[in-house]
Amino acid sequence: MINIKENERLNKMNHSCAHLLAQAVKHLYKEAKFWVGPVIEEGFYYDIDLGDKTLTEEDLPKIEREMKKIAKDGKRIVRHELTKEEALEMFKEDPYKLDLISRMDENETTISCYTQGDFTDLCRGPHVETVKELKYFKLIKHSGAYWKGDANNKMLQRIYGVCFETEEDLDNYLQELEEAKQRDHRKIGKEQELFMTHELVGSGMPLWLPNGALIRHELENYIYQKEEAMGYNHVYTPCVGTVNLYKTSGHWDHYKENMFPMMKVDEEEFVLRPMNCPHHMLVYKNKMHSYRDLPVRIGEFATDFRYEASGAVKGLERVRCMCQNDAHLFVRPDQIGDEFKRVVSLILDVYKDFGIKDYKFRLSLRDKNDKEKYFDDDEMWDTAENKLREVLNDMGVDYFEAEGEAAFYGPKLDVEVKPAVGPEVTLSTCQLDFLLPRRFELTYVDSNGEKQTPVVIHRAIFGTFDRFTAFLIEETKGAFPTWLAPTQVSVIPVSSEFQGDYAREVTEKLKEQGIRVELDDRNEKLGYRLREAQTKKVPYTLILGDNEKQDNTISYRLHGEKETTTVSEEEFIKLIKEEIEKKELRK
Amino acid sequence: MINIKENERLNKMNHSCAHLLAQAVKHLYKEAKFWVGPVIEEGFYYDIDLGDKTLTEEDLPKIEREMKKIAKDGKRIVRHELTKEEALEMFKEDPYKLDLISRMDENETTISCYTQGDFTDLCRGPHVETVKELKYFKLIKHSGAYWKGDANNKMLQRIYGVCFETEEDLDNYLQELEEAKQRDHRKIGKEQELFMTHELVGSGMPLWLPNGALIRHELENYIYQKEEAMGYNHVYTPCVGTVNLYKTSGHWDHYKENMFPMMKVDEEEFVLRPMNCPHHMLVYKNKMHSYRDLPVRIGEFATDFRYEASGAVKGLERVRCMCQNDAHLFVRPDQIGDEFKRVVSLILDVYKDFGIKDYKFRLSLRDKNDKEKYFDDDEMWDTAENKLREVLNDMGVDYFEAEGEAAFYGPKLDVEVKPAVGPEVTLSTCQLDFLLPRRFELTYVDSNGEKQTPVVIHRAIFGTFDRFTAFLIEETKGAFPTWLAPTQVSVIPVSSEFQGDYAREVTEKLKEQGIRVELDDRNEKLGYRLREAQTKKVPYTLILGDNEKQDNTISYRLHGEKETTTVSEEEFIKLIKEEIEKKELRK
Repeated sequence: MINIKENERLNKMNHSCAHLLAQAVKHLYKEAKFWVGPVIEEGFYYDIDLGDKTLTEEDLPKIEREMKKIAKDGKRIVRHELTKEEALEMFKEDPYKLDLISRMDENETTISCYTQGDFTDLCRGPHVETVKELKYFKLIKHSGAYWKGDANNKMLQRIYGVCFETEEDLDNYLQELEEAKQRDHRKIGKEQELFMTHELVGSGMPLWLPNGALIRHELENYIYQKEEAMGYNHVYTPCVGTVNLYKTSGHWDHYKENMFPMMKVDEEEFVLRPMNCPHHMLVYKNKMHSYRDLPVRIGEFATDFRYEASGAVKGLERVRCMCQNDAHLFVRPDQIGDEFKRVVSLILDVYKDFGIKDYKFRLSLRDKNDKEKYFDDDEMWDTAENKLREVLNDMGVDYFEAEGEAAFYGPKLDVEVKPAVGPEVTLSTCQLDFLLPRRFELTYVDSNGEKQTPVVIHRAIFGTFDRFTAFLIEETKGAFPTWLAPTQVSVIPVSSEFQGDYAREVTEKLKEQGIRVELDDRNEKLGYRLREAQTKKVPYTLILGDNEKQDNTISYRLHGEKETTTVSEEEFIKLIKEEIEKKELRK
Repeated sequence: MINIKENERLNKMNHSCAHLLAQAVKHLYKEAKFWVGPVIEEGFYYDIDLGDKTLTEEDLPKIEREMKKIAKDGKRIVRHELTKEEALEMFKEDPYKLDLISRMDENETTISCYTQGDFTDLCRGPHVETVKELKYFKLIKHSGAYWKGDANNKMLQRIYGVCFETEEDLDNYLQELEEAKQRDHRKIGKEQELFMTHELVGSGMPLWLPNGALIRHELENYIYQKEEAMGYNHVYTPCVGTVNLYKTSGHWDHYKENMFPMMKVDEEEFVLRPMNCPHHMLVYKNKMHSYRDLPVRIGEFATDFRYEASGAVKGLERVRCMCQNDAHLFVRPDQIGDEFKRVVSLILDVYKDFGIKDYKFRLSLRDKNDKEKYFDDDEMWDTAENKLREVLNDMGVDYFEAEGEAAFYGPKLDVEVKPAVGPEVTLSTCQLDFLLPRRFELTYVDSNGEKQTPVVIHRAIFGTFDRFTAFLIEETKGAFPTWLAPTQVSVIPVSSEFQGDYAREVTEKLKEQGIRVELDDRNEKLGYRLREAQTKKVPYTLILGDNEKQDNTISYRLHGEKETTTVSEEEFIKLIKEEIEKKELRK
């Protein structure tokens, strides 16, 4: 979706539309007082004090009608400049504006206001010329919002809206919004009982319910097998470390504000880990390595904790507790290219399996002139950067370079995936690291018997299981490929009385084959039960009537289709097992 | 092993032997000063200040010889009583004894000393009559120990010893000690690279290395499949909760001293969870349940954190971070018996698979008269207790009853397993709980449409993966059954030059079959490589010479055996795959 804040024209229009909203509210609610009305990525909002009044769904159309009326009237939007004293006098009845004025920069000698008809608001601008330009807008939703975001302050009424240049743009946007709502993984997660949150567990701490846990379990098995075949060795390490561990790694200095607070236990200071590299460094360091042993590949499904503002957390997408599909590869400098290539191949392989087609590789390089951010070893950087570029060229992968975007410890490759709705997400990452191995004094013995420092490749394919699952839910709208679907088959006898036995027999047979099957022999109408299986997005619905019972056959309907196919039991088992085995995508 | 502290006669002898040790040390090191010399489960120790001297391995036999000499001399051990003033005068040169005297109870008017020949020590006694009785003793080991256990104090020298009545008892004990040392999971864990600890991660926080992680992964898959087949639904929940969660559950009041300190994040107070029941209660509560849906079985491989003193932690056996094989079963009162039976069957089934034969079931019941500890609902308790007893009788399981040992929330069943060495360990547990469902206001709708409270069964089969793995290592001495062995097959060509190709070919074929195989084609002597495979306790060692290469056969040797068997490649693959599939125990 378009980022309104970053589009100059739309930014201005939405800003003016926020004033229009305020003016309309003032007409309808005389006692209204106004806090701030900024432009955001999705449009604008205004925080308003309506006294004891709490807005309801019915209020928005009323306000919208009033806005249209004012816009039609076509008043010009006029800028005035005042001194701070004049402004304080002008808004003396308005504690919110006084608060804003009093906190303005000492050096600002003039303050600007914008007036349109009977409404004046304190504002830096710029604005459109007249309210007539504001034709294609929509109020989207409303919510409560504490003044200054502080729960100790008064709850204000926040109204969100959006404004476009043409009717078509607005319609497209609203449609996209509706689509995003339909795909929202929080909505589907609730409907399909994939995960939940609870204030007693805490914000940003989702609990994976049985259906979601089945998906995650399948994802874990899937990537574990791939990694095992590539010579990765998985470990389990605790999701805490001591403060000294993160002082050694450098995270304590550079990353502390993203970490949970320290816990002192007797003489030790523990902290929840935000990443797993330090633990894996210690695993590597636990024994001597010869140059012949490298690459050493250490993988883990690793739980991490990172601080996010409670207002920023979102379903499985943005959380405080996450599980990374993490690995650290310890390589000799001459192995960087080959190992990097293997990681890129794995990424491509996984994306193919999940039908992810719309993605871009971003190769982040250092800024050669910035010797402060990037440690000064031009030869090392050049070799590494050329190597990565060479591999990407060799593989014929589509990528773009981003100079000055490398991490301070080495160049990296990120994969930006374009989802069905919303902005691009970075799923996979592969980063070279020359520094951490030095900080942890890692070594291997080279062919001359000399100690050398290995290079570390940090990589994650799914990123986190949490974010990847959120992505999957929104891509598939909850209609998962059969191998991932929590329920793969729904067995429905036409009548529980007459075909119930046969339905139970079929259910048992499928269960024995390891297929996740649910029997729906409730005393409800066939149509009702079929619709429910559709709503739950179960890939296969079996409809068993007298014919099926007599012939020992199965009639199945694929999710989203009307057509019914009849096959023998054996054929059905063969076809669904093959589909699961091959991890086929839904057609 | 016998608990010396709890055996009256041995306690006395070991106490006297500690004095004998001190006397001998004083003979050899004139400047020695003595702190305390208590009897412990395994014998005794004495903490001694030897000035700058640090003991070495060679010192113990010298001290032991001196002890023998003194004992042979046969001095009587004589008790004196002194006033506090007399004692302070007598030990005025000895800051350690002065410290002890000064901290004695105000009400103790007399202080006792024991003298044997030229040595007198402050002591409550009692002691044996003469040092002659101390014939069969042994100094076991020595270590450093901070005075009063405080790292800011001086490091004293601690010498451990043990004393028995007969030579046979001593020999048996030393043999058992040696056996325990050989089986010690920390020793084997290090040799076989199963797990490690590191001060930067913290005490009681083991990291599972690739070999150990493979075992745990197999154990997880094993029990997951069993539980899945029994209708358990696994979840993933975060290993933290808010303080309010544990206030709701009651843990904050009753269990806080075993928990890690609270972490305040913005407005929320988080704490690492010590157990998983509260999370699973919320999962149950997330949707409505009908009486027809019960039992609801929620399982998880769940990470928990519990406080242990850093001195008490031990390898994987006693840790601060653990992973439980946990589940909570939500049942109707009329389902208690059946569900309990299923849990006991699962325990028996698992024990059979792991060859665990020496165990006892303990049924812990309430104390009927203690209405304070046990909530007052005699009918509920009687029904539940009778039900459990009835099931155990029906199943013909050997159990004993322990009255007054139930948890305050309901009766429970624990399984105490006798390991190869050391005291009994409780592995599995199954507990009824009438209270937590009430605290979380859980309900289901009964057949009359009325809301009812379910009963919860807490159960763990392996207990924790950590403790169970420690147990497994010590039981098997690291010679794991093939399905669990980190390396299942070691492939050794007689000469890497002549049969190296064939060995590589065989290795690849086995890998393709999913067998964990390692090729040892190093340029080392055959005997050396064979010994190493034996030391690593790899179940199958393949020895490939010219004959094998010519005939496409495999000669294998089982761990611990000298005999070599020759079979075709196909036969070998078939036999080992069958062994793994059936999870056979080692013969």
